[in-house]
Amino acid sequence: MSGLASTSTLQVSKIQVIGDESGTLMVAEGGRHVPFVIRRTFVVAGVAPGVRRGHHAHKECHQLLICLGGRLSVSVADGETREIFVLERAGDSLHIPPGIWAEQVYEVPGTMLMVLCDQPYAEDDYLRDFDQFLAWRAALPKEA
Amino acid sequence: MSGLASTSTLQVSKIQVIGDESGTLMVAEGGRHVPFVIRRTFVVAGVAPGVRRGHHAHKECHQLLICLGGRLSVSVADGETREIFVLERAGDSLHIPPGIWAEQVYEVPGTMLMVLCDQPYAEDDYLRDFDQFLAWRAALPKEA
Repeated sequence: MSGLASTSTLQVSKIQVIGDESGTLMVAEGGRHVPFVIRRTFVVAGVAPGVRRGHHAHKECHQLLICLGGRLSVSVADGETREIFVLERAGDSLHIPPGIWAEQVYEVPGTMLMVLCDQPYAEDDYLRDFDQFLAWRAALPKEA
Repeated sequence: MSGLASTSTLQVSKIQVIGDESGTLMVAEGGRHVPFVIRRTFVVAGVAPGVRRGHHAHKECHQLLICLGGRLSVSVADGETREIFVLERAGDSLHIPPGIWAEQVYEVPGTMLMVLCDQPYAEDDYLRDFDQFLAWRAALPKEA
């Protein structure tokens, strides 16, 4: 085992969501809803329906994708299989470990995505070309 | 000096915002846009215009308020003075150190607030009554 995740281990989970008459609170806490230390967070908004974003994998960075509203589908690939997960309720989350290619399609107007990362931004952690991603995975040491 | 902040030291800042034809990306990274280690993050959404939320201070927790969209006004008090800051562009942020009472008024439909915290949730870190807050501040040791 190279230690890299396969798409079959991924699953949609949920952060804490508390709704009452004064609004909705979505909470993600390190060690509770987030399986890593949060070093960076980003939010994607204002994306037209049908637009596809992402198209990359990370060599080391873990990411937790969280739907803040609207609906998005997340296509993930490990080089052998591909799966699609739909985040369609506020608070729906998907942990994408390193070594997984991911693309997001924003399905409806107003869809917002929050991403929590365990690493600061580092351009050399990105694999932005799918063939390069496949070659990178293939070159990793196999089962020890 | 008790080490507690006064409202006069607070100011609206901005996280990183990258906009292009495919949407808007708002980035907050620990050590760059966030002056503390991120232990918890929450998002408030679905709040009707005019609704006031917050009404508390923290004894130890630092918070970075970030406007994700819409407009909110943040009223802060240190027991002596009160100031109002307006977060009205996506990415506008306000660092609220411990010992500052804060309230937020959501000004327009669709306003969303993200908050980054340096502490996990702890109910006993909250001061939820303004008189209790004033008494807590008054009881702190004065200048060493």
